[in-house]
Amino acid sequence: MFGGLRVVAAGATLITASIPEADVVQLDWRPPAWGDAEGARQLAVLAEDSVDEANQQAIALIHAVRPHLDSVQLAGEVVPGMSGRILLHSGPPIAWADMCGPMQGALIGATLYEEWAPDEASARALLGSGQIALDPCHHHSTVGPMAGVVSPSMPVFVVVDGERSAFATLNEGLGKVLRFGAFDGEVLARLHWLRSVMAPAINEALTVTGPIDITTLIAQALSMGDEGHNRNLASTSLLARRLAPVLAERDNGVPALQFLAENDHFALNISMAAAKLSLDAGRDVPGSTVVTAMCRNGVEFGLRVAGTGDQWFTAPVGPADGLFFPGYGPEHANPDLGDSSITETLGLGGFAMAAAPAITRFVGGTAADAIATTQAMRRITVSEHPVFQLPTLGFIGTPSGIDVRKVAETGVLPVINTGIAHLEAGVGQIGAGTVTAPPEVFVQALAALASAHSTAAIA
Amino acid sequence: MFGGLRVVAAGATLITASIPEADVVQLDWRPPAWGDAEGARQLAVLAEDSVDEANQQAIALIHAVRPHLDSVQLAGEVVPGMSGRILLHSGPPIAWADMCGPMQGALIGATLYEEWAPDEASARALLGSGQIALDPCHHHSTVGPMAGVVSPSMPVFVVVDGERSAFATLNEGLGKVLRFGAFDGEVLARLHWLRSVMAPAINEALTVTGPIDITTLIAQALSMGDEGHNRNLASTSLLARRLAPVLAERDNGVPALQFLAENDHFALNISMAAAKLSLDAGRDVPGSTVVTAMCRNGVEFGLRVAGTGDQWFTAPVGPADGLFFPGYGPEHANPDLGDSSITETLGLGGFAMAAAPAITRFVGGTAADAIATTQAMRRITVSEHPVFQLPTLGFIGTPSGIDVRKVAETGVLPVINTGIAHLEAGVGQIGAGTVTAPPEVFVQALAALASAHSTAAIA
Repeated sequence: MFGGLRVVAAGATLITASIPEADVVQLDWRPPAWGDAEGARQLAVLAEDSVDEANQQAIALIHAVRPHLDSVQLAGEVVPGMSGRILLHSGPPIAWADMCGPMQGALIGATLYEEWAPDEASARALLGSGQIALDPCHHHSTVGPMAGVVSPSMPVFVVVDGERSAFATLNEGLGKVLRFGAFDGEVLARLHWLRSVMAPAINEALTVTGPIDITTLIAQALSMGDEGHNRNLASTSLLARRLAPVLAERDNGVPALQFLAENDHFALNISMAAAKLSLDAGRDVPGSTVVTAMCRNGVEFGLRVAGTGDQWFTAPVGPADGLFFPGYGPEHANPDLGDSSITETLGLGGFAMAAAPAITRFVGGTAADAIATTQAMRRITVSEHPVFQLPTLGFIGTPSGIDVRKVAETGVLPVINTGIAHLEAGVGQIGAGTVTAPPEVFVQALAALASAHSTAAIA
Repeated sequence: MFGGLRVVAAGATLITASIPEADVVQLDWRPPAWGDAEGARQLAVLAEDSVDEANQQAIALIHAVRPHLDSVQLAGEVVPGMSGRILLHSGPPIAWADMCGPMQGALIGATLYEEWAPDEASARALLGSGQIALDPCHHHSTVGPMAGVVSPSMPVFVVVDGERSAFATLNEGLGKVLRFGAFDGEVLARLHWLRSVMAPAINEALTVTGPIDITTLIAQALSMGDEGHNRNLASTSLLARRLAPVLAERDNGVPALQFLAENDHFALNISMAAAKLSLDAGRDVPGSTVVTAMCRNGVEFGLRVAGTGDQWFTAPVGPADGLFFPGYGPEHANPDLGDSSITETLGLGGFAMAAAPAITRFVGGTAADAIATTQAMRRITVSEHPVFQLPTLGFIGTPSGIDVRKVAETGVLPVINTGIAHLEAGVGQIGAGTVTAPPEVFVQALAALASAHSTAAIA
């Protein structure tokens, strides 16, 4: 190597293929905007201090929110716009006929749970008739994992900061569950139990403990091997330990504590509602290219950006790449599903992989990959979360605030940790892994942001 | 640098001081046995396959133990040799008059707790008179943190594997506590509460859950940021979550759960007893140079080695190097204290620092230091623990089984995480940090092992 030719290559590797590998330093560079000239022009339009300033304003609003778990209430009583026959689902808007199997299954289950139909066939007919309103959770300050179905009689966590609030259902545990599209008697019985036993127990406990600071809970869990999306063992254990002495004095305390002891993901839905509450604070910041929501409905990926408010940018979503439970493989996997990527949007999950090297046993890869993933996400974000720190990286904050421009410039796509649902309704979880957001949603968002920027400049 | 002089230096740095630093690769090499010719000869005597084989035998015996938390009983009823007026203390043997302040304070507290004396003065007199037997915990299958004082009426965790058992007291929490030498009314009241409320509650819960596998508990905690000595938040939280539904049904469940929720080190003493149980399996393996116990009594450090059975090698111990609570500094620090370094002896604590980068906020240093410490401990151990894995290091086992020969060869001393006690009885904890075992105990052990080896060869 010494004294010989040394090559630094940027971009395509083909041109350096004939040079001995040891003499080449390959930079991870790709042409901006996936090589699209129009995208490159849009990036140039948005390369302005005013956009940087709007982004700092957006992320400051987002990071200023301190979500607290306040209570557990019925969705119909607290979630905005949940009156009458309405069901919420995960991801961007989608019609009944276009939905994937697991989402249809979960909606059938919710229809049966609400007793709007006596059996599967009549539930399908009712849902197909349009007599039940179907709306994204995100349109109602709510987030739901996987199918994300919420019905008026389901209890929800109420996460608040001052006058603002966000909501998520209670995690059902693993096995046959509604969120993976199962809707048999066992599933419905658990939903009834959650409403009649678990929800009041947790709610009463919260009246004793007072609201619980979720930012602190997540931060502590990140120092204990959670990344806050696919691994929630620490946050759940910390929460259970804290609620235990209070729950022990309640009538339903023993079964509630039993459920907490057996469900390693109980705290996930609380973190999701907390992330939703935080990100909604940056939901309408003109000029900002910071992402405020990423979600999937099992068919399409949906993206929202601060500078374009409530507009959805959507594109088809693929299945996750990861590890499958015995007997299952990629051929059984439904395209990615759920609102849980709200955690990545704030800087958890795939963005906080460096906090959770042990998760690589669950989603594939190595501990070094976990750190590399967080480092890659630093390239596409505008900030570090001020409270969520990564011990393995010298206590820097998790990368937070995805910048549509940086994604387009680098070609680095947000990494999302996720569960893998079976294609068919009711089978349930068949694996776990990671998925990247599709580039198309960033291409669309970039165009819309550039257009809005040019319009604002003219006006 | 290229084309110029490059120097690789081993050992003393003085000889390369005049060469530009960039041109020198300084190897971390020291002359064996701290430069002592007799020690080098002893190392040569012990450099034999038979010693390697004995070491593999010892560590296999140690790693084969699977400690389970079985029950909580009164020390006087289960700990061997605890009849009559006897008190146990941490570290190697030491007479009352030679003890440090915190240990004397704890013994005074235990004498008052047992009602063998009505006040401090008469307790001091009684202890000084020799009418109360004083013995190391280690002589009674027991380990105790800090002063480590155990009296017959104190409840102890009973950790078992088949017919074998080991014991440790219940952790009292932080603040003014007996193990740091405090003995006022508040301290004694808590000891009574532990006996009358906490101990029976945990014991009854264990009859429902059955014995709890401590190896698995510690392994899971290592993937959650614990190193199993100074950080026990994960193990305690996992244990609390598991016991919660059972404790909630007991009469004393609520206060027991409250105590578990407030004491982040509750599981430490259980881990200590588990480590003691494991290491005692290798306590008498002729020819082996594997360490089976390290402990401190606040004056001296004590070492036991498999090949020399129950013999103690002792040397003066210094205070820990670390971070102090506000208002305190090194001038207030007692020399290091406690049996808790039994965790390092098995491969936890300082040896598992790579599992717990967040601990560097508590004991000083950086996340990189934490990994470097574990890597250094790999140089002086004969094995990796088969169950205690380190996610950040690609799931290798923690370094386990300190080899006296390797310590002498490399000059690398075992690193121990520790709390720092105030010099005076009763003040309590004033900081936390790390301490290294004194080289003298390894010099002594090396000589004894070489002598035993030569004798065995002649015979």
